Formats: sequence, C-alpha cells, structure tokens
Amino acid sequence: MAKRRGFFWPSYEIYGGLSGFVTFGPLGAVLKRRIEDKFRDFFIRPLGILEIESSVIMPEKVFEASGHLDHFIESMVGCVKCRRKFRADHILQEFAGMRDTETEKLDLQELMNEIEKNNIQCPECGGDLGEPKQFMTMFSTAIGPYSDAIGYGRPEAAQGIFVEFKRLYEYARGKLPFGAVQIGHALRNEISPRQGPIRVRDFTIIDLDFFFDPEEPSWPFLKEVEDESLNLLLAENKLKGLNESVEATVRDALDKGYVKAEWQAYFMALSKRFMMKLGVPEEKQRFIEKLEWERAHYSVQGYDQEIHLDRWGWVEVSGHNYRTDYDLKQHMEFSDVDMTAFKEFEKPRKREKTTINPVMPKIGSTFKQEAPKIVKMLSSADPKEVEESFGKQGFYKWKSHKLLPDHVKITHETVEEEGKHYIPHVVEPSFGSDRLAYIALEYAYKTKNDRTLLSLPRELAPIQAGVFPLVTKDGLPEKAKEVHDRLANAGILVEYDESGSIGRRYARADEVGTPLGITIDYDTLEDDTVTIRDRDTWRQVRTEISRLPSLLRAYFHHEMDFKDLGKPVES
Amino acid sequence: MAKRRGFFWPSYEIYGGLSGFVTFGPLGAVLKRRIEDKFRDFFIRPLGILEIESSVIMPEKVFEASGHLDHFIESMVGCVKCRRKFRADHILQEFAGMRDTETEKLDLQELMNEIEKNNIQCPECGGDLGEPKQFMTMFSTAIGPYSDAIGYGRPEAAQGIFVEFKRLYEYARGKLPFGAVQIGHALRNEISPRQGPIRVRDFTIIDLDFFFDPEEPSWPFLKEVEDESLNLLLAENKLKGLNESVEATVRDALDKGYVKAEWQAYFMALSKRFMMKLGVPEEKQRFIEKLEWERAHYSVQGYDQEIHLDRWGWVEVSGHNYRTDYDLKQHMEFSDVDMTAFKEFEKPRKREKTTINPVMPKIGSTFKQEAPKIVKMLSSADPKEVEESFGKQGFYKWKSHKLLPDHVKITHETVEEEGKHYIPHVVEPSFGSDRLAYIALEYAYKTKNDRTLLSLPRELAPIQAGVFPLVTKDGLPEKAKEVHDRLANAGILVEYDESGSIGRRYARADEVGTPLGITIDYDTLEDDTVTIRDRDTWRQVRTEISRLPSLLRAYFHHEMDFKDLGKPVES
Repeated sequence: MAKRRGFFWPSYEIYGGLSGFVTFGPLGAVLKRRIEDKFRDFFIRPLGILEIESSVIMPEKVFEASGHLDHFIESMVGCVKCRRKFRADHILQEFAGMRDTETEKLDLQELMNEIEKNNIQCPECGGDLGEPKQFMTMFSTAIGPYSDAIGYGRPEAAQGIFVEFKRLYEYARGKLPFGAVQIGHALRNEISPRQGPIRVRDFTIIDLDFFFDPEEPSWPFLKEVEDESLNLLLAENKLKGLNESVEATVRDALDKGYVKAEWQAYFMALSKRFMMKLGVPEEKQRFIEKLEWERAHYSVQGYDQEIHLDRWGWVEVSGHNYRTDYDLKQHMEFSDVDMTAFKEFEKPRKREKTTINPVMPKIGSTFKQEAPKIVKMLSSADPKEVEESFGKQGFYKWKSHKLLPDHVKITHETVEEEGKHYIPHVVEPSFGSDRLAYIALEYAYKTKNDRTLLSLPRELAPIQAGVFPLVTKDGLPEKAKEVHDRLANAGILVEYDESGSIGRRYARADEVGTPLGITIDYDTLEDDTVTIRDRDTWRQVRTEISRLPSLLRAYFHHEMDFKDLGKPVES
Repeated sequence: MAKRRGFFWPSYEIYGGLSGFVTFGPLGAVLKRRIEDKFRDFFIRPLGILEIESSVIMPEKVFEASGHLDHFIESMVGCVKCRRKFRADHILQEFAGMRDTETEKLDLQELMNEIEKNNIQCPECGGDLGEPKQFMTMFSTAIGPYSDAIGYGRPEAAQGIFVEFKRLYEYARGKLPFGAVQIGHALRNEISPRQGPIRVRDFTIIDLDFFFDPEEPSWPFLKEVEDESLNLLLAENKLKGLNESVEATVRDALDKGYVKAEWQAYFMALSKRFMMKLGVPEEKQRFIEKLEWERAHYSVQGYDQEIHLDRWGWVEVSGHNYRTDYDLKQHMEFSDVDMTAFKEFEKPRKREKTTINPVMPKIGSTFKQEAPKIVKMLSSADPKEVEESFGKQGFYKWKSHKLLPDHVKITHETVEEEGKHYIPHVVEPSFGSDRLAYIALEYAYKTKNDRTLLSLPRELAPIQAGVFPLVTKDGLPEKAKEVHDRLANAGILVEYDESGSIGRRYARADEVGTPLGITIDYDTLEDDTVTIRDRDTWRQVRTEISRLPSLLRAYFHHEMDFKDLGKPVES
C-alpha cells in the first residue's frame, strides 16, 4: 500500500535496489514534513528551542573529539568463500539464539569463540566465516583535493550543535537552560541493514540537545508533566532477566531514581504525549533503560522509547540520553576553546582559594633541564591535590618526577566570587522522522466494510481535502476547479479528482488518508453550497463555498469538529 | 551582523574553520525554511508538483548513467613546493586576466600553456605550478563494508527524481505534463570554495524537474505569464563581446526563439516574480544564456538567473536548463528499464510500418559463425535506415560486414495505432535555498536614523512578533508572558524580551527583522489592550488582546495591512 499509493519505497529499484535506502514519495514526503512541523509545535516552540542547520559532512577532528572515531564501530565477520560480510552480533543472534544483551558484551575474540563453538557457517553459501573485525560505521570521504583531509557523513546531528555551543550560548544571551535542535539528514554505514524502512543508512534525524546547569536542575516546566505516567523497563530488572516494566509518574520516577535527570524525565513525558498525537496509544509504548554496555559512549543513563508494531514487535522510536558534560568537555579539550557557561551567584560567595607557586631555585637545582616542564605542569595542576598528596605521602608524583614540599610555596586566601564558570550538562531526546512517518502510517491503517482507510490524524494528512465534481459534465468540473483553486490559494492542500465514479474517488481518498471530501453537485450550481464528507465516519454536511477557507482552517487547527462544518446531510 | 545576530556563520570555527561550510543559526535556519515554504506556495502548490525525498548518498551506477562521472570534473593545478591546490581556471582568471568564457573552453594542455605563457607561480608561496589534472568534484565514499561499492554525495537532487520516474509517472496516473521537486542537501567537493556563503560544499538545493511531451509543449499556464518581461543576456551577444541584455516579454522571447521550450520560459517568469517576493526588484535581475561550452552536459539550452549584490556583483540565483530526454534516456539505457510515457491519440492514427526479416539461408551461407550476431543486429536496427542504405549504396554496412538486399525481406504494411510511447522531455529550474536566504538578507538590510533595520518581507521573518512589558514590575512581565503564550499557542512565532529599555528592545527587534512589536503597558492592566509597533514605519496602533491571534494571522497572510490592526496611537 505504501508503495502503490506513493508513501515510500526502496530506492534505486531500476538498478536492482540498494539496501538501506528508502525514497519518500509525494505523499510520504509531505507526511514526514508535517510530522516534523508537529515536532516543532510540540517541543520547539513552547520551550523556545533554537533550531539550527549545519552540514552533513563534517571534518574528522569533530569525531575524534566526540569519541565517534573510537566508538562508532561494529564487529563484522566475512565469509572466506563468497566474501559476503555480516554483523557478527546479528549472526550470533540468528544462529546461536543469543540475545542482543548478550552479544553486545562480547569482544572480537569472544565473538570468534562463540561462532566456532556454535559451528556457524556463512548463511548465504555455507562457507567458513573468517575472523571478526571492527568496522567503522560512518561514511568517510575526503574534503577538497587533499586525500588526508578526511570527513565523515554525520551519524548524528548533535555534534553540529555541540561545536556551535559558544555561538548558541551567545545568542541565548548567556542564559541557561536552553535547547538547540537540528532536523536533517544523518548517515550510518550499516554493515547489513535490516527491517526495511526501520533501519536505513540515510535518514532524517531530530536531535534536540538541552543545556542546563547540573546544580540547578529544577525548573518550572516539570509541573506540566509530573503526573504523566511512564511505562519503564528498568536496567536492574533486565539484568535479573525480568521483562516486566514498572508504571511510574514522572514525579515518582525521579524520586525513586529511575530517571536521573529531571529534564530527561520531562522530555520522556513529552515524547510519550507526542507519540499519542501521532496515533500510538499509551499501552503500545514503553521506555526501556539501556544497560551499561548497551549505552552510547557519551551517555550515563539512556532510555529508548519503544512502540509496538504488529509487524516488527517493539521498535525504538526515540532515544533519551543523559550526555552530561561529556561532549562539550571533549570539544573544549580538543579545540582549546572555552566551552563553559558563567553563572552569577545571587550574592557573592566566599571561597577558600589555594595557590601553588614554584620555588625556582629549588626546582632548578633538583630538576635541571626538566625544570621548565615542572613549572608548566604546576600551572595547570590542582593545588588542592598537590597539597593533599604532600600531606599523605610527603611528595607529589608527576611522571617519573617526585616533587617535595620545599619545591613550592602554598598559600591560602579567602576570595569573594561573583559567580563561576561551569560546563553545562546535556540531555538529549533524539528521533528519526522517517521512522515516525512509518509508525504513523502503521497506526492509521484500518479497514472499514472491507475497504482500506488511512485514519491519519487530520493535521498530518498529506492531502487535506479532495475536490470532486459529482459528474464530468454540465459545468460541474469547471465549478469544482474553481473551488479547488480557491482553497489552494488559501493555503489548503487540495487535490482535484474527476476520474471514475464518485464512490471510487471517495475510496481512493480514504486510502491515502484525506480527511475531507468536497463534492460539487447540481445543487452547487444553484446555491453555491457543497457537501463535505468525513473520511472516518463517511458522514456528510452541506455548507457554503464562501465559508470553506475559514472553516477548513479552523478544522485543521482543531478549533472545530466535523459536525460544525455545516448542516448534516440525510443519507 | 549575520554572525552576531544568529543568521549564519562559517562552520567549525572552534577547529580553525573549514572553507565551504556554513552553519545556519537560529534565525537563519528559520528564514531558510520560510523561503522554502514560500517556494512551495509559489511553484509547487499551484501546479500540483510532486515533492519527494531521496537519499543524499547515491550509488555509482546512477552517476555513470547520468554522465556526472565523466563531466562533473574541474581542472586543478598544484604547487610543486607547498602542495597547495587551485582551480586552474581561477588561477588564469585572477593572474592572467582571462574571462571565464575564455577559460571554460581550455583543455588540460591549453591550461598548462596559458599558465606557462603568463608565467604564473603559486599565489601562496611563489613555487612552480605543476601539470593541471582533472579532479572529480563529487564526494566519494563506500557503501557498506565492500570497498568497491562506491557511492557519491549527490551534486544535484534531480537524479533522485529521474531514477524514480516510473513510480512518479504511475502516481500521476500516466498523465503528462507533471513536475517533481526535491528540496534537500547537495554536496559538491569544490577544489577551493570562494565567496563566503555564496559558494559552498554542502548546501540545500531545490531541483524542480518538469516532464512534458515535446510534441505538445502548449499549455494553459502560459497566459498567466506571457506579458511578463524578461531581461535576457543572449549567448549570441555574449559571443560578440556585447554585455547588453534585451528586454522581451515571455511571448516575444518564445516567438523570437530566445527561449526554446515554453515551459522553460514559464518557469523563468515565475522565478523572476519569486525573487521579487524575496525583495529583489526587477531591475536587479537578469537571465544570462550559457554558451555551448558553459552548459552542463545534459542541457541544450541554459539560462542562469542572476541578481545583483553590492558586495559580489552579479550572482547566480537559479539555473534553468532544458534537459530534453537526456537523463531518462540514459537511465533507460543503463538500467534496461522502460522509462517511456504512453500517449493515447485522440483518434487512432494510420502509419506505414516497415518490417525487416532476415533470410536465414542467405545470411548463414554468407556470414557463417557471425550469422547470429547479424540476426541480433537486425532485430534492433531501424528498418527504414537499412532500406534507405540499400537504395543509396546498394548495401548496408554494420561493423566490417556488408549486408545485401537479398539477405533480408522487407515488408510494408499500414497499421493503426492507438497511441505511442515516447521519452518525456524535462525543463528544470534549480535554486539553492542557502543562497536565497543570503540574498533576502542583503536586500532587506537598511539603515534608518543610523539604526539597522532588517526589512524582510513579513511572511519570511524568523520571528513574527516581539512581546515586551514596558517595565519589569507591577505585574507587566506576567501579563506579557500571558500574551506571549497565547500567541505561541495560536502558532505565531513570538519572542518575549524584557531586558533593557523599551527603545533598546525595539532596536534589537528591528535588527533581526521582526515585523511587529507588541508592548504591554499600564493601560493593558486596565483594559486588556496593547500597542503594536510596525518595524518599518515605527508607527503604532492599539488593539485588544483577544483579537490578536486572528488579526496577526490575517496580517501575515497578507489579508490585512498594518493600519488595520488597531486604532492609531498619537506619537
């Protein structure tokens, strides 16, 4: 249905297809964009989140700092005979019945052992499998004419936000908390993509990174969601092999420590509500906590929001990670650029300050030509740590050098501080809008009297109204085109259709999820009224053409119900 | 200003920058998206154009077929001393004073000769320049774990449309003309990007490909634009060294043969109007026809729409190419998949059909083991061509073989045909939305009483209204936040600002192009009215809070002028 009706299909079919790539057709592309706009209404606008747009190709340095170069890898195993490659963990899950929680823990040697122990051969040709290797799952390329200027297709849009933190912080006039979001293409070079449209190599990611002061996690928004109940499958229970989730309100989840960061709980609650707006009832949703070895390298606590699909079972629909100060800290270290925020104290605070100064003659005579290095080290060392080490051990060790108390002068003073610099913490809800579109379609798919009905939420429908002349003669098509143009000019997405019987046209509109059908009949020519038909109930009302633009706008803004659109038509 | 106020800035500044990459900040990203939506209102909706979304990375096969592998190359020259690389044509333009129309014609050897003749050294270090080489300006990568599965970042979104022609044609129920569009990232690995935000390596392209029957180029839309005047700099005049353009209406431009395809002229007229909507007056626009060697390999006629910027001179803002059946034909050949459309004749047409059949005994005895090849060749040869060759020369030559009339039997019959298959032709207007945003900003930039004013068209403004409490006490901020939330919930992009004097806040809003400023003062607490201030005239009106949502919506839909928003305030 998705293919035939122009929602989406596998890309490059004329060249035999290419797994991991999906094309969104005329209806799918609009549906996807409407979902992204809904996300903006729901997450971005109320919180004043800053939306930015950065490049899809990014320089290597960024991913060196972010840790992706070291961590964005999968174990791959190849057949020595047919040379096909597979993900080692998928092979074990499929042919040794292991769970993903088991395979995620294995290193290369252990993967090899398991493959041998289970006598697994190539699933395609039966040949022997070679040694597992690490495979970097970012697409790599060279930027410009120099082959050593390596760039990568971004596997997440978040790094495009982190590297711009300084500018965003300035735009936010130095006030935290604030969030930034990016909705755009992301690329992941999966070894062997599976599950059709669910796991692809080129997709649209929505990364929302929310920056806050970890010492002031409380905020006025929590009260809006604190009674929202969350269905949580906790890591501790997963470890015990329990597959049961607990039901907790946001308030409880925080009090009991199920969720560590308040902002994370807030976004989880919002995400639950968002999925309901897309048509997924709450009983088909859960949040599953990631185990330590399942978590991304930057995350101290991660929940996946999952929803249940008849076809694929539980499917991840958003990731919620508490990234702490990890990313900003890394970029600060790799770029040598200050990535801290400054907070002014309500009133100046007194603090005892310890200073450490080298006693040059002593250092010179002890360390000779190494002396300058020692002095440099001291300038960045933590004075308290040095002092403590003297207290405990009588010396402070740096590399192979032992520093003694008489090499330095330690002073203590009380200073008054107006505020302090700190690296903000980040929680991140992250969605894929292709997947959201797919899920909205699955949940909208219904049958009524043996006919297909795509019951999409009205504000997501790619076509808002069909315009149909009852018959194609006596001036009805001309009148219908007039109505079509009038609505199109008023910004309503309309489609004109005159081919086939009116029943067939209604059926076609139902199948692609068009909420309203406007029919021009002989009465229209008399009194300038039309019938409007509701996709879900097939009920009809009659109303004046002149009122259509404002009525339809109100209807799609949910300011009006179908029955308010006109006088009921007896059927 | 663009940087400071969050419109856009060079990417990866913290890592020393990376030329050819630009980040759109919180205001720029919204401006860009609004321009894209305006494009949809202007081009897509009225014509029922199909919008799709395909992947940024595409397999090599596509670009082999499209000709990009052979043609998407630039000549590059490197310094043998410092190893820096430059575009050979840019070097000659800059240091030998050559025009781009001259350099575009040169092959590698001629480029080398010119560089030597002009004694050009490396502009960076003074070293010698080596031999020019061809450099492919697509980003290349490997898809999946096989290094021979080459993919490229798409340099244009159009190929993503062409490879899907069959599905789109089916979606359009087999009716031509129809158009398809894609708005998305495109990647071009420029050797040395110049001109800041104007020429970048990663940008958003808008490719609209319009498919039509070349035998039926006439259409009802032309009358809407036929009197629109176009400012054309013709290729024939460029060749004569004349830099003067001619002014012609769309109708005249077609009649005089300045523009070959009617649909191309239509989109050129629409593009002119579109640029006017973005704030570029017609006298700052022109269309410049490409010379034969300047045109893309797929184009038989190409015009660049240029607009004049004080900073950069004439800058290309859209390209209009008549791609004929080139792309579909190529994909048909490389994929072996039928890419034709079928048109039914109004009434069946009689046609004389010539058939050619091999006379096997004769062919066998003459060509021996080559006979099967001859038979195969005959099955795809044009019978009329063979017959004509017999008539003229007495034989038909294929490779080294001579076919004589008695090798075949030629029959003639009259057949009736219901319709015919043909490969649709394509005209393509193509924009870059980053560049459109930049241009809209440049044209909106004004000063008034020594203050900066960003006079963006109201429907493009990233923030539609600022909400300001006159002072930050006596309940005014609370009331202002109430108004802010009410408008935000009504879908209006509002920003709350209470910092600094009201004059400073107005100035800040003017600088980022916010059309309306809503101020909450002491009267508001009495009678629930607010003042609304116009960005461009600084005039104010007073109106009731309850009417704001509907008034503002009407204002931004251009259904109302500023003066209609309330009662004038005496100043």
